[in-house]
Amino acid sequence: MRTVARRAVFVGVDIGGTFLKAGLVRGSRLLREVSIPTGRAATPAGTEFLVSEALGRLGVSSGGGAAAVGVGIPGLVRFPAGVVVSCVNLPGWKEVPLKKRLSRRLGLPVFVDNDVNVMTLAEWRYGAGKGAKNLVGVTLGTGVGGGLVIDGRFYRGSGGSAGEIGHLPLAAEGPACPCGGRACLEQTVGNKQILGWVKGELKKNRRSRIWTLIGDHLEALTPEVIDRACREGDPLARKAWRRSGEAIGLALSGAVNLLNPDRIVIGGGIAKAGHWLFTPIRKTVRQRAMRGLKDVPIVPARLGTQAGMIGAARLAQEELERS
Amino acid sequence: MRTVARRAVFVGVDIGGTFLKAGLVRGSRLLREVSIPTGRAATPAGTEFLVSEALGRLGVSSGGGAAAVGVGIPGLVRFPAGVVVSCVNLPGWKEVPLKKRLSRRLGLPVFVDNDVNVMTLAEWRYGAGKGAKNLVGVTLGTGVGGGLVIDGRFYRGSGGSAGEIGHLPLAAEGPACPCGGRACLEQTVGNKQILGWVKGELKKNRRSRIWTLIGDHLEALTPEVIDRACREGDPLARKAWRRSGEAIGLALSGAVNLLNPDRIVIGGGIAKAGHWLFTPIRKTVRQRAMRGLKDVPIVPARLGTQAGMIGAARLAQEELERS
Repeated sequence: MRTVARRAVFVGVDIGGTFLKAGLVRGSRLLREVSIPTGRAATPAGTEFLVSEALGRLGVSSGGGAAAVGVGIPGLVRFPAGVVVSCVNLPGWKEVPLKKRLSRRLGLPVFVDNDVNVMTLAEWRYGAGKGAKNLVGVTLGTGVGGGLVIDGRFYRGSGGSAGEIGHLPLAAEGPACPCGGRACLEQTVGNKQILGWVKGELKKNRRSRIWTLIGDHLEALTPEVIDRACREGDPLARKAWRRSGEAIGLALSGAVNLLNPDRIVIGGGIAKAGHWLFTPIRKTVRQRAMRGLKDVPIVPARLGTQAGMIGAARLAQEELERS
Repeated sequence: MRTVARRAVFVGVDIGGTFLKAGLVRGSRLLREVSIPTGRAATPAGTEFLVSEALGRLGVSSGGGAAAVGVGIPGLVRFPAGVVVSCVNLPGWKEVPLKKRLSRRLGLPVFVDNDVNVMTLAEWRYGAGKGAKNLVGVTLGTGVGGGLVIDGRFYRGSGGSAGEIGHLPLAAEGPACPCGGRACLEQTVGNKQILGWVKGELKKNRRSRIWTLIGDHLEALTPEVIDRACREGDPLARKAWRRSGEAIGLALSGAVNLLNPDRIVIGGGIAKAGHWLFTPIRKTVRQRAMRGLKDVPIVPARLGTQAGMIGAARLAQEELERS
């Protein structure tokens, strides 16, 4: 076990389908940050190049400036090997030894994990999950992901894919999910699915405030628009969040009965809807979880869009200390 | 950490609603066994008396013959305190400090945990779960319980009630469950619920082989009768297990996606139905769990009705070593 200087600096890299973000991080403080559009460059080779580019812009050179690099990527990762098994939303990722490739290229120790795991790690160490012994972290977005802390340790499962809250089945029948299942939570509350449901309802409801906000163009609908309509009192927008909250609450009731956590942290895009979403989530868990477990605190994430970088840097720190 | 002699003997006590069983155990070997009917005596005071009676019959006296006593009880237990918070099926159990009371009475170290936890511990250490790093144990009976091994350690959750597979909700709507939830797995595959469903179907189906086996008396219906009718080819009996297996498989798909275990062990009464039950369970998990996780081995428990005693004794051994 290595002791890492308290003031050591780490690089946290957050790989996404639209941007690659990299930050120079000390503890929970983001000292400097760069953001590079990825688009078609998010292939394995393109990503390697962009990470090295980002480190250059951050002023990190081989052997100086940072102790190690942590990377969060939206895919299934074999940990600690740092092999990206697959990424549903990025092109060309299949069994890519990213940890090995990047550490060779950068001349620094590199650690790679799933993006929702590093976000949960950040919230656990520095954010809304701080101090929890057993924590369920949920991230709402295009996909619905989760991360688990069990008995004070981060838990990744036998094959690296534990925590898939978004793929808890909510019924015996229901829409097929790209994961290979059916009626998964993500099929109700993934961004695309929420937008699809609201569009369907809008066609039946010409009086919704949403029509004005999107200038009558359905393709202009985004979660942010629903959020604004909701705050302006639109019943359809409120129903969209209530319906989403109830589905999330149902899935979480199962997770609560199975894991008996002491806290649940929820972040990601639509979590910004705040109490319009959290109230039905909490209400459903109170109705559906077992007696004695109904009052588990369910709180919003705190680190926002920085969670990915801060968590990746923290991963690098913890793994370096362990090595 | 204490070292316990390799040939040390432990007492394992399995408290049930009908019998209290106690065994003298060395490793996985049950050396001697007594079984005492409980009935109305299963109150806290009555149980204390029966345990001490059982130890006497086993030839265990204070200070001699056994290193420690382990107890499994069908209720919510605060662990390691050994306080029984509640027992749904036993009278008068509410916040009972059983560990403290029994150790004072017996003059021996006593350790108390939930019955399904000790059964899972037995299967993990000596039975069908041996060698697993991440294990889900399921016990089918009047209630449907579960136990979890996570990263090579037994996991009990923040309040001692982790592993409640029987209370994973399987739908948005459904029958109320005494746990405080709704549409829980137990509401489909608890013994009472299976018998209730078969009785309902029998009334619509006079030709089922089951009618002969129960001599036309519905109240004579038991899981064993369904089992026999199933082996004799009765379509209704087969449907009962298929329907149960599909519900168990659906709940397990959620548990698999959340926990990514390397093995699932299923025991308890109706698990004796064998492949009539296991085939639909495995098929449903293959249909509903995520790609890459579909092939998790799902195997029958091996220790049968001895699991409670052997697991309780093993609990005593492990906790004594830890103390």
